[in-house]
Amino acid sequence: MVKMIALYKQPQDKEKFDEHYFQTHVPITAKIPGLRNMKVTKITGTPMGGESEYYLLCEMYYDSYEAFKEAMKTSEAKASAKDLMSFAGDIVTLMVGEEVEND
Amino acid sequence: MVKMIALYKQPQDKEKFDEHYFQTHVPITAKIPGLRNMKVTKITGTPMGGESEYYLLCEMYYDSYEAFKEAMKTSEAKASAKDLMSFAGDIVTLMVGEEVEND
Repeated sequence: MVKMIALYKQPQDKEKFDEHYFQTHVPITAKIPGLRNMKVTKITGTPMGGESEYYLLCEMYYDSYEAFKEAMKTSEAKASAKDLMSFAGDIVTLMVGEEVEND
Repeated sequence: MVKMIALYKQPQDKEKFDEHYFQTHVPITAKIPGLRNMKVTKITGTPMGGESEYYLLCEMYYDSYEAFKEAMKTSEAKASAKDLMSFAGDIVTLMVGEEVEND
């Protein structure tokens, strides 16, 4: 499986971020053709109990790089990207990766 | 489920990093009591096809915050932390989080 990872730093207004993220951004993103699964992790802190620089991590799964590339060309993906930039362009980092299979 | 996330920036020597990570660090970490699952993702780039600032992401699952806190007190966790600092202290960021359940 190939996945896209979106890592968000702490937003200035967490309540506003959460509202837009869960009410608007997730539903828009969930429509992307080829998206197999979407897993959201709320970062609660550091292992030492301090506050993390990061706020939220989202993992979006696709069957392959090919499928991911095709998905990114769709109007749904473009709508998701446009929405992302509108509310979190300054705090999000996007990565693409592949899970290593356990032996 | 509660998870600890380790996010690694690009190491100076990828081959050396991979060797230590997979041959030494993963086996040491896998011994931590209470660790339910460990998922490693190799970051391959950005969605636009560029190189990412990040190299690898590891997710380590525990039953609860309590279980995680107890686990961190063990000699196995201390050995893992000590090893981590020895080879990646300058490039790793640690976070604790909780997966949001899908509706």
